[in-house]
Amino acid sequence: MIDLYTWSTPNGQKASIMLEETGLAYEVHPVNIGEDEQFEAEFVAVSPNSKIPAIVDDGLSIFESGAILIHLAEKTGQFLAADGPARAKALEWLMFQMAGLGPMLGQTNHFLNTAPEKIPYAIERFLAESARLLKVLDDRLAEVEYLAGDYSIADIACYPWTAVGLPPLKGAKPDVLGDAEHITRWLAEIASREAVIKGMAVP
Amino acid sequence: MIDLYTWSTPNGQKASIMLEETGLAYEVHPVNIGEDEQFEAEFVAVSPNSKIPAIVDDGLSIFESGAILIHLAEKTGQFLAADGPARAKALEWLMFQMAGLGPMLGQTNHFLNTAPEKIPYAIERFLAESARLLKVLDDRLAEVEYLAGDYSIADIACYPWTAVGLPPLKGAKPDVLGDAEHITRWLAEIASREAVIKGMAVP
Repeated sequence: MIDLYTWSTPNGQKASIMLEETGLAYEVHPVNIGEDEQFEAEFVAVSPNSKIPAIVDDGLSIFESGAILIHLAEKTGQFLAADGPARAKALEWLMFQMAGLGPMLGQTNHFLNTAPEKIPYAIERFLAESARLLKVLDDRLAEVEYLAGDYSIADIACYPWTAVGLPPLKGAKPDVLGDAEHITRWLAEIASREAVIKGMAVP
Repeated sequence: MIDLYTWSTPNGQKASIMLEETGLAYEVHPVNIGEDEQFEAEFVAVSPNSKIPAIVDDGLSIFESGAILIHLAEKTGQFLAADGPARAKALEWLMFQMAGLGPMLGQTNHFLNTAPEKIPYAIERFLAESARLLKVLDDRLAEVEYLAGDYSIADIACYPWTAVGLPPLKGAKPDVLGDAEHITRWLAEIASREAVIKGMAVP
Protein backbone atom coordinates (compact mmCIF):
# COMPACT_ATOMS: atom_id res chain seq x y z
CA MET A 1 0.00 0.00 0.00
CA ILE A 2 1.26 3.45 -0.97
CA ASP A 3 0.25 6.51 1.02
CA LEU A 4 -0.43 9.51 -1.23
CA TYR A 5 -0.46 13.01 0.25
CA THR A 6 -2.09 15.29 -2.27
CA TRP A 7 -4.51 18.06 -3.18
CA SER A 8 -6.51 18.90 -6.30
CA THR A 9 -3.77 20.69 -8.26
CA PRO A 10 -1.94 19.71 -11.47
CA ASN A 11 1.08 18.46 -9.50
CA GLY A 12 -1.14 16.35 -7.27
CA GLN A 13 -3.04 14.98 -10.27
CA LYS A 14 0.19 13.80 -11.88
CA ALA A 15 0.74 11.43 -8.97
CA SER A 16 -2.85 10.18 -8.74
CA ILE A 17 -3.06 9.59 -12.51
CA MET A 18 0.17 7.55 -12.34
CA LEU A 19 -1.11 5.50 -9.43
CA GLU A 20 -4.32 4.78 -11.33
CA GLU A 21 -2.43 3.95 -14.55
CA THR A 22 -0.10 1.51 -12.82
CA GLY A 23 -2.89 -0.17 -10.86
CA LEU A 24 -1.00 0.12 -7.56
CA ALA A 25 -3.04 0.14 -4.35
CA TYR A 26 -2.94 3.51 -2.60
CA GLU A 27 -4.55 5.45 0.20
CA VAL A 28 -5.24 9.16 -0.21
CA HIS A 29 -4.39 11.68 2.51
CA PRO A 30 -5.75 15.11 1.51
CA VAL A 31 -3.48 18.04 2.38
CA ASN A 32 -5.59 21.18 2.12
CA ILE A 33 -3.13 23.82 0.92
CA GLY A 34 -5.88 26.44 1.15
CA GLU A 35 -5.73 25.85 4.92
CA ASP A 36 -1.87 25.77 5.01
CA GLU A 37 -1.89 22.11 6.01
CA GLN A 38 1.33 21.64 4.00
CA PHE A 39 3.21 23.42 6.79
CA GLU A 40 2.04 21.05 9.53
CA ALA A 41 4.78 18.93 11.12
CA GLU A 42 3.28 15.57 10.14
CA PHE A 43 3.35 16.51 6.46
CA VAL A 44 6.74 18.28 6.56
CA ALA A 45 8.25 15.04 7.89
CA VAL A 46 7.23 13.43 4.58
CA SER A 47 7.71 16.46 2.32
CA PRO A 48 10.35 18.84 3.73
CA ASN A 49 9.66 21.45 1.04
CA SER A 50 6.00 21.65 2.14
CA LYS A 51 4.71 20.87 -1.34
CA ILE A 52 2.22 18.29 -2.49
CA PRO A 53 2.28 15.59 -3.74
CA ALA A 54 4.35 13.22 -1.65
CA ILE A 55 4.17 9.47 -1.18
CA VAL A 56 5.30 6.94 1.36
CA ASP A 57 6.03 3.59 -0.24
CA ASP A 58 6.85 0.85 2.25
CA GLY A 59 8.46 3.34 4.64
CA LEU A 60 10.30 5.33 1.95
CA SER A 61 9.02 8.90 1.64
CA ILE A 62 9.39 10.68 -1.69
CA PHE A 63 8.43 14.27 -2.51
CA GLU A 64 8.46 16.13 -5.87
CA SER A 65 5.97 14.86 -8.44
CA GLY A 66 8.69 14.18 -11.02
CA ALA A 67 10.60 11.93 -8.63
CA ILE A 68 7.38 10.13 -7.72
CA LEU A 69 6.62 9.46 -11.40
CA ILE A 70 10.09 8.00 -12.01
CA HIS A 71 9.89 5.89 -8.84
CA LEU A 72 6.50 4.42 -9.72
CA ALA A 73 7.55 3.83 -13.34
CA GLU A 74 10.66 1.95 -12.26
CA LYS A 75 8.79 0.06 -9.55
CA THR A 76 6.26 -1.28 -12.03
CA GLY A 77 8.18 -1.25 -15.32
CA GLN A 78 5.45 0.88 -16.87
CA PHE A 79 5.35 4.22 -18.76
CA LEU A 80 9.14 4.71 -18.92
CA ALA A 81 11.41 2.73 -21.22
CA ALA A 82 14.25 0.97 -19.39
CA ASP A 83 16.89 2.45 -21.71
CA GLY A 84 17.58 3.94 -25.11
CA PRO A 85 16.16 6.97 -26.91
CA ALA A 86 12.59 6.46 -25.63
CA ARG A 87 13.84 6.76 -22.03
CA ALA A 88 15.86 9.90 -22.79
CA LYS A 89 12.91 11.52 -24.58
CA ALA A 90 10.50 10.72 -21.72
CA LEU A 91 12.90 12.20 -19.16
CA GLU A 92 13.60 15.36 -21.17
CA TRP A 93 9.91 16.14 -21.66
CA LEU A 94 9.25 15.31 -18.01
CA MET A 95 11.95 17.86 -17.10
CA PHE A 96 10.46 20.36 -19.58
CA GLN A 97 7.26 20.18 -17.52
CA MET A 98 9.02 20.25 -14.14
CA ALA A 99 11.38 23.13 -14.91
CA GLY A 100 9.41 25.11 -17.47
CA LEU A 101 5.73 24.48 -18.06
CA GLY A 102 4.79 23.98 -14.40
CA PRO A 103 6.66 26.93 -12.87
CA MET A 104 5.73 29.35 -15.66
CA LEU A 105 2.03 28.42 -15.76
CA GLY A 106 2.07 28.63 -11.96
CA GLN A 107 3.41 32.18 -12.04
CA THR A 108 0.98 33.11 -14.82
CA ASN A 109 -1.90 31.96 -12.65
CA HIS A 110 -0.50 33.81 -9.63
CA PHE A 111 -0.08 37.16 -11.37
CA LEU A 112 -3.39 36.86 -13.27
CA ASN A 113 -5.59 35.56 -10.48
CA THR A 114 -4.01 35.64 -7.01
CA ALA A 115 -1.66 38.61 -6.66
CA PRO A 116 -3.25 41.52 -4.77
CA GLU A 117 -2.34 43.95 -7.53
CA LYS A 118 -2.37 43.67 -11.33
CA ILE A 119 1.22 44.11 -12.54
CA PRO A 120 1.19 44.40 -16.35
CA TYR A 121 4.91 43.66 -16.77
CA ALA A 122 4.74 40.41 -14.79
CA ILE A 123 1.46 39.30 -16.38
CA GLU A 124 2.84 39.87 -19.88
CA ARG A 125 6.15 38.18 -19.03
CA PHE A 126 4.62 34.97 -17.75
CA LEU A 127 1.84 34.84 -20.35
CA ALA A 128 4.42 35.18 -23.13
CA GLU A 129 6.75 32.53 -21.72
CA SER A 130 3.85 30.13 -21.07
CA ALA A 131 2.55 30.57 -24.61
CA ARG A 132 6.05 30.01 -25.99
CA LEU A 133 6.38 26.78 -24.00
CA LEU A 134 2.99 25.52 -25.16
CA LYS A 135 4.02 26.28 -28.77
CA VAL A 136 7.12 24.11 -28.23
CA LEU A 137 4.81 21.37 -26.94
CA ASP A 138 2.43 21.78 -29.90
CA ASP A 139 5.33 21.55 -32.36
CA ARG A 140 6.53 18.34 -30.66
CA LEU A 141 3.05 16.84 -30.81
CA ALA A 142 2.89 17.62 -34.54
CA GLU A 143 5.69 15.05 -34.96
CA VAL A 144 4.76 12.32 -32.46
CA GLU A 145 1.58 10.81 -31.05
CA TYR A 146 2.88 11.04 -27.47
CA LEU A 147 5.85 13.04 -26.18
CA ALA A 148 8.27 10.11 -26.05
CA GLY A 149 6.60 8.02 -28.76
CA ASP A 150 4.50 5.75 -26.58
CA TYR A 151 2.36 7.15 -23.75
CA SER A 152 4.71 7.77 -20.81
CA ILE A 153 5.32 9.70 -17.61
CA ALA A 154 6.13 12.72 -19.81
CA ASP A 155 2.50 12.82 -20.99
CA ILE A 156 1.21 12.16 -17.47
CA ALA A 157 3.29 15.10 -16.22
CA CYS A 158 2.33 17.55 -18.95
CA TYR A 159 -1.36 16.65 -19.23
CA PRO A 160 -2.90 18.23 -16.10
CA TRP A 161 -0.84 21.43 -16.47
CA THR A 162 -1.72 21.78 -20.14
CA ALA A 163 -5.40 20.99 -19.61
CA VAL A 164 -5.70 23.88 -17.16
CA GLY A 165 -3.09 26.16 -18.75
CA LEU A 166 -4.08 26.15 -22.40
CA PRO A 167 -7.56 27.75 -22.34
CA PRO A 168 -6.53 31.14 -20.86
CA LEU A 169 -3.60 31.30 -23.30
CA LYS A 170 -5.53 30.64 -26.51
CA GLY A 171 -5.84 33.95 -28.31
CA ALA A 172 -3.24 35.66 -26.08
CA LYS A 173 -1.34 38.45 -27.84
CA PRO A 174 0.93 37.89 -29.63
CA ASP A 175 -0.94 34.81 -30.82
CA VAL A 176 1.80 32.22 -31.14
CA LEU A 177 -0.46 29.25 -30.39
CA GLY A 178 -3.17 29.52 -33.04
CA ASP A 179 -5.69 26.76 -32.42
CA ALA A 180 -3.00 24.50 -30.87
CA GLU A 181 -4.41 21.64 -32.90
CA HIS A 182 -1.81 19.05 -31.91
CA ILE A 183 -2.10 19.77 -28.19
CA THR A 184 -5.88 19.66 -28.57
CA ARG A 185 -5.73 16.22 -30.22
CA TRP A 186 -3.35 14.92 -27.53
CA LEU A 187 -5.41 16.37 -24.63
CA ALA A 188 -8.54 14.67 -25.94
CA GLU A 189 -6.80 11.30 -26.25
CA ILE A 190 -5.43 11.45 -22.72
CA ALA A 191 -8.62 12.84 -21.20
CA SER A 192 -10.51 9.77 -22.42
CA ARG A 193 -8.32 7.31 -20.49
CA GLU A 194 -10.14 5.72 -17.58
CA ALA A 195 -7.13 6.07 -15.25
CA VAL A 196 -6.86 9.76 -16.10
CA ILE A 197 -10.54 10.38 -15.37
CA LYS A 198 -10.13 8.66 -12.00
CA GLY A 199 -6.79 10.30 -11.19
CA MET A 200 -8.03 13.81 -12.01
CA ALA A 201 -10.81 13.38 -9.43
CA VAL A 202 -8.39 12.76 -6.50
CA PRO A 203 -8.77 13.80 -3.74
CA MET B 1 32.49 11.70 -28.02
CA ILE B 2 29.64 13.77 -26.61
CA ASP B 3 28.79 17.15 -28.07
CA LEU B 4 27.85 19.68 -25.37
CA TYR B 5 25.96 22.84 -26.30
CA THR B 6 26.23 25.23 -23.40
CA TRP B 7 26.85 28.69 -21.99
CA SER B 8 28.22 30.00 -18.68
CA THR B 9 25.03 29.73 -16.60
CA PRO B 10 24.16 27.44 -13.68
CA ASN B 11 22.17 25.10 -15.92
CA GLY B 12 25.08 24.86 -18.34
CA GLN B 13 27.54 24.28 -15.51
CA LYS B 14 25.51 21.33 -14.22
CA ALA B 15 26.18 19.49 -17.49
CA SER B 16 29.87 20.40 -17.74
CA ILE B 17 30.54 19.46 -14.09
CA MET B 18 28.89 16.07 -14.68
CA LEU B 19 30.92 15.47 -17.83
CA GLU B 20 34.10 16.30 -15.92
CA GLU B 21 33.09 14.12 -12.95
CA THR B 22 32.34 11.10 -15.12
CA GLY B 23 35.49 11.49 -17.21
CA LEU B 24 33.61 11.21 -20.48
CA ALA B 25 35.19 12.80 -23.57
CA TYR B 26 33.22 15.80 -24.79
CA GLU B 27 33.45 18.70 -27.21
CA VAL B 28 32.07 22.10 -26.22
CA HIS B 29 29.91 24.15 -28.57
CA PRO B 30 29.26 27.58 -27.01
CA VAL B 31 25.74 28.96 -27.54
CA ASN B 32 25.86 32.66 -26.72
CA ILE B 33 22.44 33.36 -25.26
CA GLY B 34 23.37 37.05 -24.97
CA GLU B 35 23.37 37.04 -28.78
CA ASP B 36 20.17 34.94 -29.06
CA GLU B 37 22.07 32.03 -30.59
CA GLN B 38 19.70 29.64 -28.80
CA PHE B 39 17.02 30.53 -31.37
CA GLU B 40 19.16 29.59 -34.39
CA ALA B 41 17.90 26.62 -36.40
CA GLU B 42 21.01 24.47 -35.86
CA PHE B 43 20.59 24.65 -32.08
CA VAL B 44 16.80 24.34 -32.06
CA ALA B 45 17.19 21.04 -33.92
CA VAL B 46 19.04 19.75 -30.84
CA SER B 47 17.12 21.68 -28.19
CA PRO B 48 13.56 22.46 -29.34
CA ASN B 49 12.89 24.60 -26.26
CA SER B 50 15.82 26.89 -27.16
CA LYS B 51 17.48 26.40 -23.78
CA ILE B 52 21.02 25.40 -22.92
CA PRO B 53 22.44 22.93 -22.10
CA ALA B 54 21.87 20.16 -24.62
CA ILE B 55 24.00 17.21 -25.63
CA VAL B 56 24.27 14.88 -28.56
CA ASP B 57 25.51 11.45 -27.52
CA ASP B 58 26.17 9.11 -30.45
CA GLY B 59 23.37 10.69 -32.48
CA LEU B 60 20.89 10.97 -29.61
CA SER B 61 20.07 14.58 -28.70
CA ILE B 62 18.96 15.37 -25.16
CA PHE B 63 17.89 18.74 -23.78
CA GLU B 64 17.02 19.77 -20.18
CA SER B 65 19.91 19.65 -17.72
CA GLY B 66 18.09 17.25 -15.39
CA ALA B 67 17.56 14.72 -18.17
CA ILE B 68 21.21 15.08 -19.19
CA LEU B 69 22.36 14.37 -15.63
CA ILE B 70 20.24 11.21 -15.40
CA HIS B 71 21.38 10.05 -18.84
CA LEU B 72 25.07 10.49 -18.03
CA ALA B 73 24.67 8.89 -14.59
CA GLU B 74 22.97 5.83 -16.06
CA LYS B 75 25.45 5.67 -18.96
CA THR B 76 28.42 5.53 -16.59
CA GLY B 77 26.91 4.03 -13.43
CA GLN B 78 28.17 7.02 -11.44
CA PHE B 79 26.56 9.58 -9.08
CA LEU B 80 23.10 7.95 -9.02
CA ALA B 81 22.32 4.74 -7.14
CA ALA B 82 20.78 2.04 -9.34
CA ASP B 83 17.86 1.53 -6.96
CA GLY B 84 16.63 1.88 -3.39
CA PRO B 85 16.30 4.90 -1.10
CA ALA B 86 19.53 6.57 -2.29
CA ARG B 87 18.17 6.68 -5.83
CA ALA B 88 14.81 8.11 -4.71
CA LYS B 89 16.52 10.77 -2.57
CA ALA B 90 18.86 11.82 -5.41
CA LEU B 91 15.95 12.15 -7.83
CA GLU B 92 13.75 14.11 -5.39
CA TRP B 93 16.48 16.65 -4.64
CA LEU B 94 17.31 16.86 -8.34
CA MET B 95 13.64 17.69 -8.95
CA PHE B 96 13.68 20.20 -6.07
CA GLN B 97 16.38 22.04 -8.00
CA MET B 98 14.72 21.67 -11.41
CA ALA B 99 11.22 22.71 -10.34
CA GLY B 100 11.95 25.03 -7.41
CA LEU B 101 15.41 26.37 -6.77
CA GLY B 102 16.32 26.99 -10.42
CA PRO B 103 13.10 28.68 -11.58
CA MET B 104 12.71 30.78 -8.41
CA LEU B 105 16.35 31.96 -8.29
CA GLY B 106 16.04 32.68 -12.01
CA GLN B 107 13.01 34.91 -11.45
CA THR B 108 14.69 36.57 -8.48
CA ASN B 109 17.66 37.46 -10.66
CA HIS B 110 15.36 38.71 -13.43
CA PHE B 111 13.29 41.03 -11.24
CA LEU B 112 16.34 42.25 -9.26
CA ASN B 113 18.77 42.76 -12.12
CA THR B 114 17.24 42.49 -15.60
CA ALA B 115 13.66 43.77 -15.61
CA PRO B 116 13.39 47.33 -16.99
CA GLU B 117 11.42 48.47 -13.93
CA LYS B 118 11.76 47.67 -10.22
CA ILE B 119 8.55 45.96 -9.12
CA PRO B 120 8.57 45.65 -5.30
CA TYR B 121 5.84 42.99 -5.15
CA ALA B 122 7.63 40.66 -7.59
CA ILE B 123 11.06 41.26 -6.03
CA GLU B 124 9.75 40.46 -2.55
CA ARG B 125 7.80 37.43 -3.78
CA PHE B 126 10.75 35.76 -5.47
CA LEU B 127 13.28 36.73 -2.79
CA ALA B 128 11.05 35.23 -0.10
CA GLU B 129 10.44 32.00 -2.00
CA SER B 130 14.13 31.63 -2.87
CA ALA B 131 15.15 32.16 0.76
CA ARG B 132 12.54 29.62 1.88
CA LEU B 133 13.89 27.06 -0.59
CA LEU B 134 17.48 27.64 0.53
CA LYS B 135 16.36 27.18 4.15
CA VAL B 136 14.87 23.81 3.17
CA LEU B 137 18.23 22.95 1.59
CA ASP B 138 20.15 24.11 4.66
CA ASP B 139 17.93 22.00 6.93
CA ARG B 140 18.54 18.95 4.73
CA LEU B 141 22.30 19.52 4.80
CA ALA B 142 22.18 19.70 8.60
CA GLU B 143 21.19 16.01 8.51
CA VAL B 144 23.33 14.60 5.69
CA GLU B 145 26.75 15.26 4.19
CA TYR B 146 25.38 15.27 0.65
CA LEU B 147 21.76 15.55 -0.46
CA ALA B 148 21.26 11.84 -1.14
CA GLY B 149 23.88 10.57 1.31
CA ASP B 150 26.79 10.14 -1.11
CA TYR B 151 27.74 12.87 -3.58
CA SER B 152 25.29 12.58 -6.50
CA ILE B 153 23.60 14.33 -9.40
CA ALA B 154 21.41 16.09 -6.81
CA ASP B 155 24.46 17.94 -5.48
CA ILE B 156 25.75 18.58 -8.99
CA ALA B 157 22.38 20.12 -9.89
CA CYS B 158 22.01 22.27 -6.77
CA TYR B 159 25.63 23.44 -6.48
CA PRO B 160 25.94 26.04 -9.27
CA TRP B 161 22.52 27.54 -8.51
CA THR B 162 23.22 27.77 -4.80
CA ALA B 163 26.74 29.16 -5.28
CA VAL B 164 25.35 32.09 -7.27
CA GLY B 165 22.02 32.36 -5.47
CA LEU B 166 23.01 32.33 -1.80
CA PRO B 167 25.10 35.53 -1.49
CA PRO B 168 22.35 38.03 -2.49
CA LEU B 169 19.89 36.24 -0.17
CA LYS B 170 22.01 36.24 2.97
CA GLY B 171 20.61 38.88 5.24
CA ALA B 172 17.40 39.27 3.21
CA LYS B 173 14.38 40.31 5.29
CA PRO B 174 12.82 38.36 6.86
CA ASP B 175 16.11 36.63 7.64
CA VAL B 176 15.19 32.95 7.48
CA LEU B 177 18.65 31.80 6.38
CA GLY B 178 20.91 33.08 9.14
CA ASP B 179 24.47 32.19 8.22
CA ALA B 180 23.33 29.11 6.26
CA GLU B 181 26.14 27.16 7.88
CA HIS B 182 25.27 23.78 6.44
CA ILE B 183 24.97 25.08 2.88
CA THR B 184 28.25 26.95 3.38
CA ARG B 185 30.03 23.75 4.49
CA TRP B 186 28.59 21.83 1.54
CA LEU B 187 29.42 24.54 -1.01
CA ALA B 188 33.05 24.59 0.16
CA GLU B 189 33.37 20.81 -0.11
CA ILE B 190 31.98 20.73 -3.63
CA ALA B 191 33.88 23.82 -4.79
CA SER B 192 37.16 22.07 -3.97
CA ARG B 193 36.54 19.15 -6.34
CA GLU B 194 38.80 19.23 -9.39
CA ALA B 195 35.97 18.26 -11.75
CA VAL B 196 33.81 21.07 -10.36
CA ILE B 197 36.55 23.65 -10.84
CA LYS B 198 36.97 22.51 -14.44
CA GLY B 199 33.24 22.22 -15.12
CA MET B 200 32.47 25.68 -13.74
CA ALA B 201 34.94 27.21 -16.23
CA VAL B 202 33.10 25.82 -19.31
CA PRO B 203 32.76 27.34 -21.87
